[in-house]
Amino acid sequence: MSVGVVAGTAHRALADAVAAALGTAPVACELERFPDGELRPDVGQVQGEDVYVVQPTGPAVNEHLIELLLLLDACHRGGADRLTAVVPYFGYARQDRRTRAGQPVGARVVTEALEAAGADRLVVVDPHTAALEAMCGMPVEMLTAVPAIAAVLAEETPGTAVVVSPDFGAVKLAEHYACLLRRPVAVVRKTRESGTRVQAEELVGDVAGRPTVIVDDMISTGATVEAAVRVLLSCGAAPDITVAATHGLLAGDARDRLAQLPLRRVLVTDTLATGQTQALPLQVRSVAPLLADAINRLHNSEPLDALLMRS
Amino acid sequence: MSVGVVAGTAHRALADAVAAALGTAPVACELERFPDGELRPDVGQVQGEDVYVVQPTGPAVNEHLIELLLLLDACHRGGADRLTAVVPYFGYARQDRRTRAGQPVGARVVTEALEAAGADRLVVVDPHTAALEAMCGMPVEMLTAVPAIAAVLAEETPGTAVVVSPDFGAVKLAEHYACLLRRPVAVVRKTRESGTRVQAEELVGDVAGRPTVIVDDMISTGATVEAAVRVLLSCGAAPDITVAATHGLLAGDARDRLAQLPLRRVLVTDTLATGQTQALPLQVRSVAPLLADAINRLHNSEPLDALLMRS
Amino acid sequence: MSVGVVAGTAHRALADAVAAALGTAPVACELERFPDGELRPDVGQVQGEDVYVVQPTGPAVNEHLIELLLLLDACHRGGADRLTAVVPYFGYARQDRRTRAGQPVGARVVTEALEAAGADRLVVVDPHTAALEAMCGMPVEMLTAVPAIAAVLAEETPGTAVVVSPDFGAVKLAEHYACLLRRPVAVVRKTRESGTRVQAEELVGDVAGRPTVIVDDMISTGATVEAAVRVLLSCGAAPDITVAATHGLLAGDARDRLAQLPLRRVLVTDTLATGQTQALPLQVRSVAPLLADAINRLHNSEPLDALLMRS
Amino acid sequence: MSVGVVAGTAHRALADAVAAALGTAPVACELERFPDGELRPDVGQVQGEDVYVVQPTGPAVNEHLIELLLLLDACHRGGADRLTAVVPYFGYARQDRRTRAGQPVGARVVTEALEAAGADRLVVVDPHTAALEAMCGMPVEMLTAVPAIAAVLAEETPGTAVVVSPDFGAVKLAEHYACLLRRPVAVVRKTRESGTRVQAEELVGDVAGRPTVIVDDMISTGATVEAAVRVLLSCGAAPDITVAATHGLLAGDARDRLAQLPLRRVLVTDTLATGQTQALPLQVRSVAPLLADAINRLHNSEPLDALLMRS
Amino acid sequence: MSVGVVAGTAHRALADAVAAALGTAPVACELERFPDGELRPDVGQVQGEDVYVVQPTGPAVNEHLIELLLLLDACHRGGADRLTAVVPYFGYARQDRRTRAGQPVGARVVTEALEAAGADRLVVVDPHTAALEAMCGMPVEMLTAVPAIAAVLAEETPGTAVVVSPDFGAVKLAEHYACLLRRPVAVVRKTRESGTRVQAEELVGDVAGRPTVIVDDMISTGATVEAAVRVLLSCGAAPDITVAATHGLLAGDARDRLAQLPLRRVLVTDTLATGQTQALPLQVRSVAPLLADAINRLHNSEPLDALLMRS
Amino acid sequence: MSVGVVAGTAHRALADAVAAALGTAPVACELERFPDGELRPDVGQVQGEDVYVVQPTGPAVNEHLIELLLLLDACHRGGADRLTAVVPYFGYARQDRRTRAGQPVGARVVTEALEAAGADRLVVVDPHTAALEAMCGMPVEMLTAVPAIAAVLAEETPGTAVVVSPDFGAVKLAEHYACLLRRPVAVVRKTRESGTRVQAEELVGDVAGRPTVIVDDMISTGATVEAAVRVLLSCGAAPDITVAATHGLLAGDARDRLAQLPLRRVLVTDTLATGQTQALPLQVRSVAPLLADAINRLHNSEPLDALLMRS
Repeated sequence: MSVGVVAGTAHRALADAVAAALGTAPVACELERFPDGELRPDVGQVQGEDVYVVQPTGPAVNEHLIELLLLLDACHRGGADRLTAVVPYFGYARQDRRTRAGQPVGARVVTEALEAAGADRLVVVDPHTAALEAMCGMPVEMLTAVPAIAAVLAEETPGTAVVVSPDFGAVKLAEHYACLLRRPVAVVRKTRESGTRVQAEELVGDVAGRPTVIVDDMISTGATVEAAVRVLLSCGAAPDITVAATHGLLAGDARDRLAQLPLRRVLVTDTLATGQTQALPLQVRSVAPLLADAINRLHNSEPLDALLMRS
Repeated sequence: MSVGVVAGTAHRALADAVAAALGTAPVACELERFPDGELRPDVGQVQGEDVYVVQPTGPAVNEHLIELLLLLDACHRGGADRLTAVVPYFGYARQDRRTRAGQPVGARVVTEALEAAGADRLVVVDPHTAALEAMCGMPVEMLTAVPAIAAVLAEETPGTAVVVSPDFGAVKLAEHYACLLRRPVAVVRKTRESGTRVQAEELVGDVAGRPTVIVDDMISTGATVEAAVRVLLSCGAAPDITVAATHGLLAGDARDRLAQLPLRRVLVTDTLATGQTQALPLQVRSVAPLLADAINRLHNSEPLDALLMRS
Repeated sequence: MSVGVVAGTAHRALADAVAAALGTAPVACELERFPDGELRPDVGQVQGEDVYVVQPTGPAVNEHLIELLLLLDACHRGGADRLTAVVPYFGYARQDRRTRAGQPVGARVVTEALEAAGADRLVVVDPHTAALEAMCGMPVEMLTAVPAIAAVLAEETPGTAVVVSPDFGAVKLAEHYACLLRRPVAVVRKTRESGTRVQAEELVGDVAGRPTVIVDDMISTGATVEAAVRVLLSCGAAPDITVAATHGLLAGDARDRLAQLPLRRVLVTDTLATGQTQALPLQVRSVAPLLADAINRLHNSEPLDALLMRS
Repeated sequence: MSVGVVAGTAHRALADAVAAALGTAPVACELERFPDGELRPDVGQVQGEDVYVVQPTGPAVNEHLIELLLLLDACHRGGADRLTAVVPYFGYARQDRRTRAGQPVGARVVTEALEAAGADRLVVVDPHTAALEAMCGMPVEMLTAVPAIAAVLAEETPGTAVVVSPDFGAVKLAEHYACLLRRPVAVVRKTRESGTRVQAEELVGDVAGRPTVIVDDMISTGATVEAAVRVLLSCGAAPDITVAATHGLLAGDARDRLAQLPLRRVLVTDTLATGQTQALPLQVRSVAPLLADAINRLHNSEPLDALLMRS
Repeated sequence: MSVGVVAGTAHRALADAVAAALGTAPVACELERFPDGELRPDVGQVQGEDVYVVQPTGPAVNEHLIELLLLLDACHRGGADRLTAVVPYFGYARQDRRTRAGQPVGARVVTEALEAAGADRLVVVDPHTAALEAMCGMPVEMLTAVPAIAAVLAEETPGTAVVVSPDFGAVKLAEHYACLLRRPVAVVRKTRESGTRVQAEELVGDVAGRPTVIVDDMISTGATVEAAVRVLLSCGAAPDITVAATHGLLAGDARDRLAQLPLRRVLVTDTLATGQTQALPLQVRSVAPLLADAINRLHNSEPLDALLMRS
Repeated sequence: MSVGVVAGTAHRALADAVAAALGTAPVACELERFPDGELRPDVGQVQGEDVYVVQPTGPAVNEHLIELLLLLDACHRGGADRLTAVVPYFGYARQDRRTRAGQPVGARVVTEALEAAGADRLVVVDPHTAALEAMCGMPVEMLTAVPAIAAVLAEETPGTAVVVSPDFGAVKLAEHYACLLRRPVAVVRKTRESGTRVQAEELVGDVAGRPTVIVDDMISTGATVEAAVRVLLSCGAAPDITVAATHGLLAGDARDRLAQLPLRRVLVTDTLATGQTQALPLQVRSVAPLLADAINRLHNSEPLDALLMRS
């Protein structure tokens, strides 16, 4: 049973890099697009292989999801011996619960569809919800890019810098970064006047005159970063701010919004195809070595613990 | 247990018309679109209801499919007592088999995902493949709009007209129309020089000097209609050609292509939202009464035979 | 279809109270215990009923879990028309992810077993993880006892009191209480010297000279409360401290530990049978009205939104 | 993992030939028949093997089906590592849809039962419906015997012969044969007087004075062939008619009916045990090499494309 | 929701009697038999009904089983609201375990197929294995005809009669009869010379000069009865022997074998269509009232305990 | 793929012995017990292994069952390639049917939960019900310790001894022992005065003055043994009585009860951890060689027939 890397169209460059790191080439695979928008992939020959379908489900998320389901079905029917969905960015992860009774649980809809389409196992990177694996019957390996990002930060970040969590949801992540960088943590806290909807932000921790590193799992519209920068500056932080996140979603007008902030650097990985980056001081660290390492270990039945998310 | 009609965004007008025909209003239902393209519907209150989610899956097919899955999950978790997916146009129906070993069976991927998302039953109109129900564990009701379309045709079509099947795949459908209209059938046949890929079309049946009605289940890019018109005219058919189909997909440049043909009329139903129709002599017959009739019978446990596809 | 309340042995008093609030009596139901520890319940006659099995899965959690599975199977085979597991305290909810590769996802093991045993729906109160519903194919209603607890607090808590979250994990919950009580929030924060395992606690927010209300979803061993009290007192909080939580697990030596703290009151609900309470200033608010209200709405197909957890 | 060929009783000769072509012998396997008609096979030792159960489901179709289910269960419980049902003739394939609301979808009933009994994969030859694979969650390989049959025809069929499709349903198949034989196609068309049930047959294409080859996927009662021969002769075809089909079902009085027609030859394969053939000019081409080739490729993870049905 | 009785062809008379006892008529239902042996039932209109499909699976067991699966699928797809398989005699029940590693577990194959075909519930009469319900996920009601048979016996059996179990497997059943009839029990015991395969029968209990009633769950080939009679006579029992069993399978040459024994009467029920009875002193007690009573209780959600097997 | 033996806490000594017999050591595996009774095992590294989880489910049965489910889930998510639950004593096996309509089928509840938790296969020793495998979709290997126990008995049992079945349920087992030991069988029979609940025991067979060996599948409370001894002595058996059973459950006050009987020896296996044995003449034969042999054969795809239960 040999390894087969199947590249979806969501991020061919990443799949190519993963395959290269594994010393192979992606399976020859084509995607037909019909005039009415229907897709039909052809994964070629995967009979008896240990197949890894690489397809992040960032924007256009629904297109990429359906393509992923079709790819999985094609591999299943084509006789793949074991079928792993490698979804570096896992869309719909934020919908892990209903906030009103009439809503769906989007994350579960996606995991159910992946299992129905034939996936035996799922590999993701820093998913928004650590409960993702609890939604799946199949084994899920939740890799983390945090050590790789922290290694880049460690090279350049001044010794006086403070790691900043832009809200309470990211505190554990910030503490993980802080532990790796041996830096203190500060937290932006949203407070609410009792009984009203007016919110204010305050900062827990001391950043006066110091460089800062805002960390999060993803940068979506940039609004959270923008608010954090505002608070940091108002608290006297040095105008030397770095932003680091695993997923550079950069949706909507995120690029414009971030371009107007006094950022030293925006550091993300290539779990998503980030495209043009002129206006932004964007630096992209590849997760291809991480994914290749994980695939290698899975294929050779070696432990993955060193690559996994802490939660 | 009362009827609840949930309208997806793919075709709100149709859902409204169905609800109106049932003497009710659609369930208050909203769709949130996030900047990164993720969707989150809210179907409000469906606890204990007999719910019908109306959502055709034409272009943008993948968006509409994911939305449909989310709607079904929302209704399921919201406590719907019985949950029927009403998909007047069923996308991916053409992918009911692999033609090469590396392809998926797209139609099955879709039916599996619908069942995984909580659908108890499926209602479709004139699906491209009659084997659709064999792909589902849940009951499938395959309604037909052919009698309704034939009734419109009967009013205007001259007594000398011939029903034309534009290829062998539509012969049974053409015979159904011919039977209802009491007209003869002609068939466009694609022939191939032995051993080559060069194709020619010829006509089986006599259309000389007579008006014709080309019938099919759907009009996709219009290429099939264009070819049939060319053959009909070359065989001496009168320049009085009507085109009738259940689904007006009109994908790609179909409108332009059809607008250049000498067509008396293009008759379709509103299983899909057809939008602007200036350039074309397009006439749209609504399937809302058909869907309302079916829902009514299902809700009241009455037989649907009179509404079903002949195959 | 009438309502049938089946009482497991984990908390018969609660089931009785729920049934009474519904104007009925629990189904006559017995539990045989064999000398080797095997259990065999007999739920009597539930043919065609809308059955609610009331069984929290607190200590002895494994006994109560197996009994719950047996009760569900008995109801399923006995012909229950609809079968809802009412699990006011949901054990194993903390195991919603693996922290090492060799661990199970306990919460998912439990939900899978419940579905395999025949449950159609799950009702819980303030579960430790809001992703619980994403682990289930069946609908899950996550009720909250927070408003009921807050109503008790509102009557007695001085106007100067501060709501305290004993760690970052409970901040959202604390904000929910604070919003209902129109009070400010303070947060106990565990900090870690970079690179070491030595932890310290600090307080975010001002409590000097003020009464405080520590809130959490559950009180397990009391260690978290003990640490929070220590921090509060060291920060000059008034020695007027109330503790409020939905679930009074009080495991191990929790009673002794709490009895030694200067607590005005420990307020919990009866999602678990709390037993003897002499040494503690324990006050128990019943969730029976909440559960009865939820069952009533489910049975009569009315919306539950007002009873659900905010997350 | 070695290959194990398990022979059902439906066609032991074929299974023996397949095993011989694979250079092995069928697994020692017995079938007990009880006086009340119940069956109990014993497949011996298949622990850890890659098992192929060979059993066509022609007449007595229901006996052979139940035996197949029992064989699959025996192999599953006996520890087969991978379990493939090889069903050269797949009965009930014609029931791939309901034509009235009260009917079953027989083909789906069969595929569901096969999957429930433990089959991991299905191999068939020229099934009546190409949508068969869409009915299955497991991979289905639809082999074709058409090239093998065409090779026999090519040796003897005069250069002037015409390939004849006996109805519209077999046109694609006829075109496949025509392409391989480099011959033209003619089609028998059933026409119906508008509004009546009286049918007539006519021929599309020119056969005057020429030898003909009627092709179909199966010969059931011979009625379709009989009608086609009548039309061909009435259109002046030469009295040199060959009939070729994958499956020689020859049900009811098919042998007598065909024996009375002026047929040069009836060419079928041994997907079914055809038994006595005196009265008919029957020639049987074995599919054993085809099946052995497919099993070999599946076992060794090689592509099957060259063996698959075109559709 | 009204009751719909669907009659398979295995025993139309019984289904008619059941329907009559329920004050209704069986659903109009037809069975098409194709020349190749394939079956296609049409159950007419069952939309929204509480459907009971009556079909024992005695000889021809495999035919009746496949027909039953097709009937269930037809009812499921036809929209039955609840679907109960009523299988008065349940074939393959003796295969509830493997006795060699290469055998199937036939009873499980059957229950799996029934569930896959859409059955929600199963009703049987005196199945050979009481573990039948443990093989099913669906509820199973195991009715017993023993009280009805005992009532007939009570009228005629002399006060001195002894109930005889023909082997150890039927001892519990014999004790049930004995309890109802207030008679003692004797048991035929097969003994084996240690280390040899030679068997002998001996009788446990005293029957000298007394009339006897041999009871069993079914009479298959009559060999067991024949052996018991031989032992009874050799032990001095009076030549006044009655045989009573729920299922009169009478397979193979059972009629001839029994006809040669000095039997006063052979008493069975009509769970199976017993056909001609001239040579035998056969008396048939109908289970129609029992089945109708059970259906009535299930439909009206009343307890069935009084009708169920003791085990 | 190498063998991995995972030892649950129910019987570590047995798992160690099995691993030793396989020439390996159990996987390093820990069990965390939380103060509230929740368990969290950590099975370490099982990626790609052929894993056997050894855990009998005797007292405390519910604790051991939940631990087993958690172990299986941990192995499944940890990437075990094949996952076998080795449950030497299978608790809840006696609940293989309902005796009243309100009861569960406990054995099925357990098998469903095991399959839901990820088990691919089950290995048990002399289960109380031979229908256990029919309750499972996965293959079940039912090993027997009877030959091993009989070998011990053969060494010491006098040539005049009689094998005694303590009730009708154990007759087949007694015959199996008798066949191996070449001894006759006697059976204790419970008789009931017709129409009353008063029971008496009598003995079928001759034991006057002879040593006896009472055999059963398990010794639970010892009450059955006690009654049998009483009958044997009253029938004049020699006061030289041996008791042999596979499972030494010894629940409740079984030890005391047995200690007061004139038993030469109580012979059981170590399918359960029997603990202290001073008061009893208890002899324990290990099943470790049997389990190791079975695991070895399963891992190497060799036939198990020689190790399997006769039924």
